[in-house]
Amino acid sequence: MAQHTHAPQVLAFDIFGTVVDWHGSIAREIGATYPQVDGDAFALAWRAGYQPAMRRVMAGELPWTLIDDLHRMILDSILPGFGLAHLEEAERVELNRVWHRLDPWPDVLEGLGRLKSRFVICTLSNGNLNLLTRLSKRAALPWDCILSAEVFGAYKPDPRTYGGVARVFGVPPEQVMLVAAHHDDLEGARACGLQTAYIERSLEFGAGQVKDVSPRALKGMHARDLLDLAQQLGC
Amino acid sequence: MAQHTHAPQVLAFDIFGTVVDWHGSIAREIGATYPQVDGDAFALAWRAGYQPAMRRVMAGELPWTLIDDLHRMILDSILPGFGLAHLEEAERVELNRVWHRLDPWPDVLEGLGRLKSRFVICTLSNGNLNLLTRLSKRAALPWDCILSAEVFGAYKPDPRTYGGVARVFGVPPEQVMLVAAHHDDLEGARACGLQTAYIERSLEFGAGQVKDVSPRALKGMHARDLLDLAQQLGC
Repeated sequence: MAQHTHAPQVLAFDIFGTVVDWHGSIAREIGATYPQVDGDAFALAWRAGYQPAMRRVMAGELPWTLIDDLHRMILDSILPGFGLAHLEEAERVELNRVWHRLDPWPDVLEGLGRLKSRFVICTLSNGNLNLLTRLSKRAALPWDCILSAEVFGAYKPDPRTYGGVARVFGVPPEQVMLVAAHHDDLEGARACGLQTAYIERSLEFGAGQVKDVSPRALKGMHARDLLDLAQQLGC
Repeated sequence: MAQHTHAPQVLAFDIFGTVVDWHGSIAREIGATYPQVDGDAFALAWRAGYQPAMRRVMAGELPWTLIDDLHRMILDSILPGFGLAHLEEAERVELNRVWHRLDPWPDVLEGLGRLKSRFVICTLSNGNLNLLTRLSKRAALPWDCILSAEVFGAYKPDPRTYGGVARVFGVPPEQVMLVAAHHDDLEGARACGLQTAYIERSLEFGAGQVKDVSPRALKGMHARDLLDLAQQLGC
């Protein structure tokens, strides 16, 4: 916190990968429901379609589309490659809702509880409000408020999202801290004047594709997990 | 529930008067801070400006304005009549934030906890997200999601608000129930196909102006308070 004299009032959390383990949750569910499918590869393929789909929306090739619907488009496109082209509508709907059933990393419940005692804690995710609400309710995540790209009509890293959090809470941008496991997200936030905290999630893409989470100099806070962040912030 | 075969999935709550006691909270704080002022009359005067101010926004006389800012406009207009024209900017800012410090009615915490065990519970208030978040955090209200006129760009009873809740949660309108202590709000919701529950809050305007809360036939559910609603809904 050397470069900032003031603690933030609001902590805004990225969700997929930072708070919940999308890879492990999806790989486990696929493995249990369709044992003939490689769950690890399926999770990676599904997620690999995520950024390109959002870019098509932001480029105007697609109208504004909720993440639930983008997930479904990507799902439909990858099913044949995994020998699941025969899945019926009801099975596809149910499978697509796995994104509402992602499990949090083990430090999250205690970490958020401690951080909530001192800060306003909210989501800032490209996930839509329904997805974020159902996921958070199932996992008992104690948000003070759920904010989403859906509220701002733009996906991160669009400045309307980061600036939007500050505007919603009536504080200057430097009183908001984005907490995320992705450098591009944090850079977008810093460009809007937010404070940032990087969270190490070396297993975000599974054990077969370990992420480099080593600290990068002079770029906001760096914490091992949310418990470490709570300790560094004095909670 | 005789007229509906299916229980709702989502309960959306009006806030001012239904969940929190704006009159008592404001009268108490005014009485404590400015003992020379009639807190009861002050609370009523402040709230009396609320509907007319929102109507000016919806009629296009004012641009889209957050409730925090409408509250401030009304506050500035009523201060002279209560001998408080001399209040400085910092005092006005602090006083305006009393709307972030409203106390819930005594049944609310237990009632919401029970309802949350079975339904998605969210706010649907004309209050802005910051107001609702700070109020809910202070009072430990366990919302699954905070929705506001601010998200929909329209104040209740505009159909975009009631219909917006169903759209956000991806359910048909009849799977959403609006819970409110005001018949006009409930009528707006029913016109959009929502289920409704009226909550008796006979003291919403204080003991000097007791509200008629007697049941009206064939107009959705009627509950004494949130504990009674929870019991009627089987929680």
